[in-house]
Amino acid sequence: MLLHLSTWQEVEEYLQRSRGIIVPIGSTEQHGPTGLIGTDAICAEAIASAVGKVTQAIVAPTINVGMALHHTAFPGTISLRPSTMIQLVKDYLTCLVKTGFCKFYFINGHGGNIATLKAAFSETYAHLADLQLSNASQVQCQVANWFMCADVYKLAKELYGSEEGSHATPSEVALTQYVYPDSIKQGNLSAEVNKERKIYSATDFRDRYPDGRMGSNPNLATPEHGKQFYDLAVKELSNRYLEFLNSQ
Amino acid sequence: MLLHLSTWQEVEEYLQRSRGIIVPIGSTEQHGPTGLIGTDAICAEAIASAVGKVTQAIVAPTINVGMALHHTAFPGTISLRPSTMIQLVKDYLTCLVKTGFCKFYFINGHGGNIATLKAAFSETYAHLADLQLSNASQVQCQVANWFMCADVYKLAKELYGSEEGSHATPSEVALTQYVYPDSIKQGNLSAEVNKERKIYSATDFRDRYPDGRMGSNPNLATPEHGKQFYDLAVKELSNRYLEFLNSQ
Amino acid sequence: MLLHLSTWQEVEEYLQRSRGIIVPIGSTEQHGPTGLIGTDAICAEAIASAVGKVTQAIVAPTINVGMALHHTAFPGTISLRPSTMIQLVKDYLTCLVKTGFCKFYFINGHGGNIATLKAAFSETYAHLADLQLSNASQVQCQVANWFMCADVYKLAKELYGSEEGSHATPSEVALTQYVYPDSIKQGNLSAEVNKERKIYSATDFRDRYPDGRMGSNPNLATPEHGKQFYDLAVKELSNRYLEFLNSQ
Amino acid sequence: MLLHLSTWQEVEEYLQRSRGIIVPIGSTEQHGPTGLIGTDAICAEAIASAVGKVTQAIVAPTINVGMALHHTAFPGTISLRPSTMIQLVKDYLTCLVKTGFCKFYFINGHGGNIATLKAAFSETYAHLADLQLSNASQVQCQVANWFMCADVYKLAKELYGSEEGSHATPSEVALTQYVYPDSIKQGNLSAEVNKERKIYSATDFRDRYPDGRMGSNPNLATPEHGKQFYDLAVKELSNRYLEFLNSQ
Amino acid sequence: MLLHLSTWQEVEEYLQRSRGIIVPIGSTEQHGPTGLIGTDAICAEAIASAVGKVTQAIVAPTINVGMALHHTAFPGTISLRPSTMIQLVKDYLTCLVKTGFCKFYFINGHGGNIATLKAAFSETYAHLADLQLSNASQVQCQVANWFMCADVYKLAKELYGSEEGSHATPSEVALTQYVYPDSIKQGNLSAEVNKERKIYSATDFRDRYPDGRMGSNPNLATPEHGKQFYDLAVKELSNRYLEFLNSQ
Amino acid sequence: MLLHLSTWQEVEEYLQRSRGIIVPIGSTEQHGPTGLIGTDAICAEAIASAVGKVTQAIVAPTINVGMALHHTAFPGTISLRPSTMIQLVKDYLTCLVKTGFCKFYFINGHGGNIATLKAAFSETYAHLADLQLSNASQVQCQVANWFMCADVYKLAKELYGSEEGSHATPSEVALTQYVYPDSIKQGNLSAEVNKERKIYSATDFRDRYPDGRMGSNPNLATPEHGKQFYDLAVKELSNRYLEFLNSQ
Repeated sequence: MLLHLSTWQEVEEYLQRSRGIIVPIGSTEQHGPTGLIGTDAICAEAIASAVGKVTQAIVAPTINVGMALHHTAFPGTISLRPSTMIQLVKDYLTCLVKTGFCKFYFINGHGGNIATLKAAFSETYAHLADLQLSNASQVQCQVANWFMCADVYKLAKELYGSEEGSHATPSEVALTQYVYPDSIKQGNLSAEVNKERKIYSATDFRDRYPDGRMGSNPNLATPEHGKQFYDLAVKELSNRYLEFLNSQ
Repeated sequence: MLLHLSTWQEVEEYLQRSRGIIVPIGSTEQHGPTGLIGTDAICAEAIASAVGKVTQAIVAPTINVGMALHHTAFPGTISLRPSTMIQLVKDYLTCLVKTGFCKFYFINGHGGNIATLKAAFSETYAHLADLQLSNASQVQCQVANWFMCADVYKLAKELYGSEEGSHATPSEVALTQYVYPDSIKQGNLSAEVNKERKIYSATDFRDRYPDGRMGSNPNLATPEHGKQFYDLAVKELSNRYLEFLNSQ
Repeated sequence: MLLHLSTWQEVEEYLQRSRGIIVPIGSTEQHGPTGLIGTDAICAEAIASAVGKVTQAIVAPTINVGMALHHTAFPGTISLRPSTMIQLVKDYLTCLVKTGFCKFYFINGHGGNIATLKAAFSETYAHLADLQLSNASQVQCQVANWFMCADVYKLAKELYGSEEGSHATPSEVALTQYVYPDSIKQGNLSAEVNKERKIYSATDFRDRYPDGRMGSNPNLATPEHGKQFYDLAVKELSNRYLEFLNSQ
Repeated sequence: MLLHLSTWQEVEEYLQRSRGIIVPIGSTEQHGPTGLIGTDAICAEAIASAVGKVTQAIVAPTINVGMALHHTAFPGTISLRPSTMIQLVKDYLTCLVKTGFCKFYFINGHGGNIATLKAAFSETYAHLADLQLSNASQVQCQVANWFMCADVYKLAKELYGSEEGSHATPSEVALTQYVYPDSIKQGNLSAEVNKERKIYSATDFRDRYPDGRMGSNPNLATPEHGKQFYDLAVKELSNRYLEFLNSQ
Repeated sequence: MLLHLSTWQEVEEYLQRSRGIIVPIGSTEQHGPTGLIGTDAICAEAIASAVGKVTQAIVAPTINVGMALHHTAFPGTISLRPSTMIQLVKDYLTCLVKTGFCKFYFINGHGGNIATLKAAFSETYAHLADLQLSNASQVQCQVANWFMCADVYKLAKELYGSEEGSHATPSEVALTQYVYPDSIKQGNLSAEVNKERKIYSATDFRDRYPDGRMGSNPNLATPEHGKQFYDLAVKELSNRYLEFLNSQ
Repeated sequence: MLLHLSTWQEVEEYLQRSRGIIVPIGSTEQHGPTGLIGTDAICAEAIASAVGKVTQAIVAPTINVGMALHHTAFPGTISLRPSTMIQLVKDYLTCLVKTGFCKFYFINGHGGNIATLKAAFSETYAHLADLQLSNASQVQCQVANWFMCADVYKLAKELYGSEEGSHATPSEVALTQYVYPDSIKQGNLSAEVNKERKIYSATDFRDRYPDGRMGSNPNLATPEHGKQFYDLAVKELSNRYLEFLNSQ
């Protein structure tokens, strides 16, 4: 059930049977010469949508711009500052808590979002308590990174070994190929790629990783792999969402 | 050309021939008993995407949550506070200006966004000047509301007369029916509907407009109307975008 | 009744009979070679003061610096950033609501304030709800632009035609001449003046409108015209204030 | 020379001969049962205007709402939060510095403004340095409290002794009587008045000082005294402004 | 009783008998060629700790970075902006008030903190009232500057006369020598030293006071003097803390 | 070399040979019935100070209050909100970068700080780039959690097995016992302790972990263990700091 394709009365009914909501969050950032700028949002959205179907959970619109300041030396990247993103998440959650939601499950497609999301959750719990909302102390937020699902991680290792890298990875590229088969990009990638994982400023990032990849070989990606990753992630996150929903 | 389906190198090339970008912006808010919560984002996204095709412009990911605080007493609505939205728009534009974009054309689906967007543009121009970016003084932002296109307005008048109303209107509902024919909602609507246009607090709004509609009769909407609105808006905004792009 | 010339006990008594307050808001910005920098504040203050007398409403001190970032390349302009102005308006309203005011009628002298004011109203309604003030849901804000009064607009058209322009207009200059007859400025104005209405950054503004005027010929202004505009605006806004006060 | 009664070209000329500007700042707050709510702004504005004449300095529009949070339990008080006021002062100064002003002389009518003003100056110096404005390191701000002028203080002591008190004082009331002889308020004041000077929260303030006075007997005020205070303050502050202007 | 060496259960017990807490606040800023960068924090912490012992008050961890923007042209200085410091103080106090503290006694080692601290107190009182905490109106904050204790001031005058100066003073240096006898620094100081007390921007400060001292001769300091200052400050501030604690 | 016990001239000299600085960061939060409220700051400070000696690095004053909002239902806890902490870290780093520091090594004693610290680093890199500081792109920040050192972790496992838990752990308590042997607290601890690791709001935290411990048995701690942990952490972090300092 997608929030944006529902009416407010359907949401009202939904709240009679569940207090949970899934929030996909991605990023709009360079993903190497052949990766889509929307990779992280595409993956999060596709998986979240399927998890929503499996678990009969409502799915919020995708937060498609996240914390990607380190990628901003590449054209096309858009990023929130962490302080803006904290306010955004606080605004989202405050609206949703006021009308009855309590369990927020963020399906995340971008490692760079994790720290700021967690900071935002802390800020929000305190804010909700200050507002003296009756359900403030029941509010629980969790971030689930699809790319860190046990089986996803294992499959990536099997398929790509160390060529998985840590940005513009074949696994995420594969998933976007599965979702958008018409947007598969061709391109020669230099065989040499910096295997570091250091992330500092945007300028430093581009100096260090000139074509945007961090140790990855996205040429290994195929749409068939993408389907595999998708299925594994949907399965694992569906289970974990239900656990979260039913836990105290 | 959709930003999220492009690579950074494609964006780099694009910037050789154009400095313009289209940014769809909607809202996630109640649209009466039969309107989709995502109505404003859906309309903006669909139209912007087509305008992008017609004009060969790049289209940014849709800002799908906007300024809808007055709708927050209805479940499912999500809103940014204006102060958050100003920071968000500033962050977006700053990233894009730094890598070469200058002309920002916001295709907007929600009247409630206009004031905050304009405030954000002012804040951003000053911020960019403070950053001493070389292209700061060339930056131009414009907001184009599809529902205020001359021909759209005229057609809505013809088809619905005063039953167009001002929120959860048949014209916007029709457009979503055209875009998402599988999500057409049925529902009995009370014939009586408040024809006021007053907007104050969220509580007041729900008291004043108990089912969320402002003077509208969305039962008049059909997908065929939706296609007409869509075509008219795409045509007019494509022309206006090109004018904007080519103006000083 | 002017707030600044009242005692707190007089305000307490006033609140027994009315919950309304008039807030004049202007700007401190260049108004062309012959217009006063305080034009917008002067007009708003003079009219608000008279409306207060006619309607027996209390009038707050004038907000004499508003949102004029686009004029800041001209010496003497002072502007708040929109984000500051939102906080300012929120602070004003919060103080006044806490002691009993509910109906806020902003008499505005500057087009550039409108967007930020409206954003501030939205931000404030939500803030007051969060504070759980008992009268939060009765709070209503309205912005009334004297220069958009139907009769004012009509008279300006009659007297000046297209030479009214859109900044440093003869109508507003006339009004200041009526209020401050000792501060009528002389000056040769170039006959050619840019008739555009585009507003982007401060640097762009000064490039586009080198002497500060936007399509106007303020030399047409006379104090007698000023009195006419003043009378028309006071009459119309007095009626509209009373309507607002008595409306739900 | 009043900024709001000048044109931008007059300001441009002024900047050829002086980089100084006087900024009157007051407050909009209760001043006991017989004192005007605008007392602090009225005093600051009247004195600043005269100092401007004596010294041929330009005088900015009065900041008529300041930091008066402790008075907000009395109806009619309007206050900025310190964090808002810091942003406001920063915005003012940034605009003025960008077009050439360097020496800012705040003539202040309210003790409660001093701390926040000083904090704002520090914040602004750092901000201007960050903007890399060429004249940033020449910017100097000073706050001059008219009520702390040596001769003013001495006269208040002579005329009123300990009945001067520390809020809603006869000296400031006298000055407003001189400026607004038509707004002299009558009222019985209890002879007993709390002589403390403690200031904590707004609620505590009203409990502690039930009619708003802090140890003062404003019934001693006369318009003639007001003129004396005015003359003394104008003289002393004119000298001090010139010293400041000419100092390194 | 030091907060950081206590358990939460000890704090809970403490709150049964007292609602007061001492908060030492200093700065991390240049103190001339021979003064320690931590001087202000060291003095505040040492004195606060002793006052805590004498009065059986709990002592919070030292705020060791304060408002020292004017010293930031010297390496090693760290400063908060005033707006950050206001948020910090608000956060500290809000946490402590929520669990029962009401009387906050800031023992301060740095003149530059005073204005921002006072602004922060005002901001916090209003914030606590907005949170509707039951004890909000009992919250009282006071700042006590050890260097302004009557007997400290008198002794400094006796020992150093005008060579006390106003920054990097022999009295504060002496106190740090007493607390950290192993960190007494040697150095030739120019006999000439600027006796002004003007403080503007950081760049201006370093130009004006090239070695960081303001009119002082810290070579006069001895650890024995330090002990005297310490004893006098502890005695006076212990008495004043108890007065504060027991006052309404 | 401790920054607070140095002079600015010593810092200037230090910067000739190194651009690195160690910043200890802890927290002021409940650590169960027998753990010190200052545990995290004490551990970070002690280890950082020793690492500074081993590596001849300068050590900043300890940030002794961090992000501990989830502990604020226990008396004595003080926390910054994440948004405040981001501003604080940004202010610290901006000051230090302006005078030449580039490599920031945060030795952290509190898991709850990690997310906000990382968010703050991202925010700061972008801010420094906006300031156009010449060394902005060389700035690198790293957070090193002493309790996650490989050998520390291993030893804790060996000594305490699952009784290490995740808050108020015997390892951190042991370290404080080593540093402050006079502040070892006695207390009966219930044998039953919640082994979860869930962290949501402050109220929820106290409900879930009534005495403040998360799965730990701090009664196993001894000062001797503390010394072992200390030695292991100092050794590992010294090596890692030097690596960081010498890395690109």
